[in-house]
Amino acid sequence: MKIIVHKYGGTSVGDIERIKTVARRICRAKEPGVGLVVVVSAMGGTTDELINLAQDINSEPSEREMDQLISTGEQISSALLAMAIHHDGFDAVSLTGIQVGILTDDSHTKARIFKITPEKIFQALKEDKIVVVAGFQGHNLQNDITTLGRGGSDTTAVALAAVLEAEVCEIFTDVDGIYTADPRIVPTAVKLDQISYDEMLELASLGAKVIQNRAVEFAKKFNVTLHVRSSFNEVQGTFVSEEADTMSMEKVVIRGVTFNQEEAKLTLTMVPDTPGVAARIFKTIADGNINVDMIIQNVSAEGFTDVSFTVPRPELAKARGLVRDISREIGAGDVTVEDEIAKVSIVGVGMKSNPGVAATMFEALAEEKINIMMISTSEIKISCIVQSDDGERAARALHKAFELDQD
Amino acid sequence: MKIIVHKYGGTSVGDIERIKTVARRICRAKEPGVGLVVVVSAMGGTTDELINLAQDINSEPSEREMDQLISTGEQISSALLAMAIHHDGFDAVSLTGIQVGILTDDSHTKARIFKITPEKIFQALKEDKIVVVAGFQGHNLQNDITTLGRGGSDTTAVALAAVLEAEVCEIFTDVDGIYTADPRIVPTAVKLDQISYDEMLELASLGAKVIQNRAVEFAKKFNVTLHVRSSFNEVQGTFVSEEADTMSMEKVVIRGVTFNQEEAKLTLTMVPDTPGVAARIFKTIADGNINVDMIIQNVSAEGFTDVSFTVPRPELAKARGLVRDISREIGAGDVTVEDEIAKVSIVGVGMKSNPGVAATMFEALAEEKINIMMISTSEIKISCIVQSDDGERAARALHKAFELDQD
Repeated sequence: MKIIVHKYGGTSVGDIERIKTVARRICRAKEPGVGLVVVVSAMGGTTDELINLAQDINSEPSEREMDQLISTGEQISSALLAMAIHHDGFDAVSLTGIQVGILTDDSHTKARIFKITPEKIFQALKEDKIVVVAGFQGHNLQNDITTLGRGGSDTTAVALAAVLEAEVCEIFTDVDGIYTADPRIVPTAVKLDQISYDEMLELASLGAKVIQNRAVEFAKKFNVTLHVRSSFNEVQGTFVSEEADTMSMEKVVIRGVTFNQEEAKLTLTMVPDTPGVAARIFKTIADGNINVDMIIQNVSAEGFTDVSFTVPRPELAKARGLVRDISREIGAGDVTVEDEIAKVSIVGVGMKSNPGVAATMFEALAEEKINIMMISTSEIKISCIVQSDDGERAARALHKAFELDQD
Repeated sequence: MKIIVHKYGGTSVGDIERIKTVARRICRAKEPGVGLVVVVSAMGGTTDELINLAQDINSEPSEREMDQLISTGEQISSALLAMAIHHDGFDAVSLTGIQVGILTDDSHTKARIFKITPEKIFQALKEDKIVVVAGFQGHNLQNDITTLGRGGSDTTAVALAAVLEAEVCEIFTDVDGIYTADPRIVPTAVKLDQISYDEMLELASLGAKVIQNRAVEFAKKFNVTLHVRSSFNEVQGTFVSEEADTMSMEKVVIRGVTFNQEEAKLTLTMVPDTPGVAARIFKTIADGNINVDMIIQNVSAEGFTDVSFTVPRPELAKARGLVRDISREIGAGDVTVEDEIAKVSIVGVGMKSNPGVAATMFEALAEEKINIMMISTSEIKISCIVQSDDGERAARALHKAFELDQD
């Protein structure tokens, strides 16, 4: 049996009318002989309401009880969606994480899936029922309810698609697909028909609102084809899969340009260049629960070096305090900060086999007289930190230089 | 281990403050070495809100999906109550019907309990945790969620008390206990210390808001001692148990007086007195989904008889229409109705062994010049229909005649 998995987020089932709209869409997709499994998030806002209730009772609620509590959100939306499908004349059955048999580890509120027992789903599909699964949830070996963390419904959908060997996992969202750049910044941005898992992961700043990185990693691991598409129209979106379409892949060096202005840069000067110093710096930052993004350490001169790194802008003050303390401890120099920065990146698996991509990037920026403050590279991504004022112009220049502009 | 079961209804957990109050009460009751199992209803109003959501989506929602939906109400309140107990410094764990292992039949929305597997509860009690069970729900053999019908949390509590061999099942409610009469009608009414299951069942009109009859039947079957008491104070309420306290029981002939004005009376005259006629009448009424309470058939005279019966007042018009149709079919006479009636009853297991109770009742009414329109008797109850205007006076007269008045 050909199986297709749909996933609808909280906005798509935000109220009664939207649930009815989603039900009609599902019924249109239900072809004879096709097994349809629908994963649904809680109605938009429900989870936060439940969290607020818990907070009013206990400011540090037990995570086990939080999972018992917030998993009801998806149980409600899945039951309502099944009722809406019935109303449109199709058979459907809703199932919770426990009922499906989504076994996870014991990490309440951020559990990892161990194993899925799909017998109950197969049974329902055999009876030609549309199966509506409450996303975001599972259970541990003790049959306690667990949840998979924010965006967990994406993971549920991809994991089910893997276990059921679904032809495709369709992620319905409020955008048409993945674009070569944010159209608000680069008006010539184009929707991509296809991209690889790695590109999708590196394009996180474009796709983060669309699907969780963790679910993409899961899809990559189990080779599940994703189809990111709009829940408001029938237009084809962006397929995310392994680098299958080699012919066209080779022509495309760069898939997209990302841009963000949400970081700030710190530099610790005159750091004694001895083993363990970098570890000490970043251990302290990590202990402060601050996510570091780019890290640059310049070549050492006379036993001293400068270390620069970027952090989310709201964490800048806290990070500066921590770094000043470390500086005193290790006998380093001043701490300088720069919060008027932007990060522009180019992403594409094609750059692996195309020398000169970095050079093209730097030339394009130079032509625009944009100064590069930091550079960081990975196998399929090159990022530059530039002045905040130059950021959007940089993104447009790169989009054009790599021939991504719409015809 | 000594085990005690508490049950709190929807009003007791109606909002955050009340949940906190209930938690404090539970923590006060938690003595070392005592296993405490708490059954909780949904927060007041939640179930109706969920039903309304379902109705907005599908005017005839599937009962299986209704159960998936409305069972979340108790899952939410039980998790919140566990969090509130944690806040007061005690360990607690909430469990849904599926997690406890409350196996029922397949009758969604009105399921009957088959079997309870209490291992998970015993395990938690052994770890000295207070166990908070989501009332009203179970699961069938396919692991679909089932619910036990309105008032099902009472049944959950009593069933758990039976399986766990609890010392007592405490039903916390908004009244102090069971009274000899409704104090609003009989100001001299007294709270009863103890009452038998059968008396509790027959006193339904006094106790209906306190505990569901079905749960009392269950308690009787498994000999579970109930303690009906207030959730607002620590005063002892009314114990419901088998006729244990024989010494005092023999002194008490009548336990209480009930009164209701919610019925109307129909009389079908000149009914041909042939076999099957009564069956035909009441089959038709039952098919119209109308609950008949009292039925009186007078002695036949010359092959004809009059049949009188009472129905809930809102059903009078419908019942009259049905009876008129039957009258034509079977060749009976006129249909007369009387909606200005009241029913007064005396209840007590003592009357079984005390002749003359009925006579005392009729004399007491006669002394008050109250005319009796219908009489109906059971082993432990005698009911009279009187004019509506006479009803309250009748109740007070009977309360006095059977020496139930407060000293």
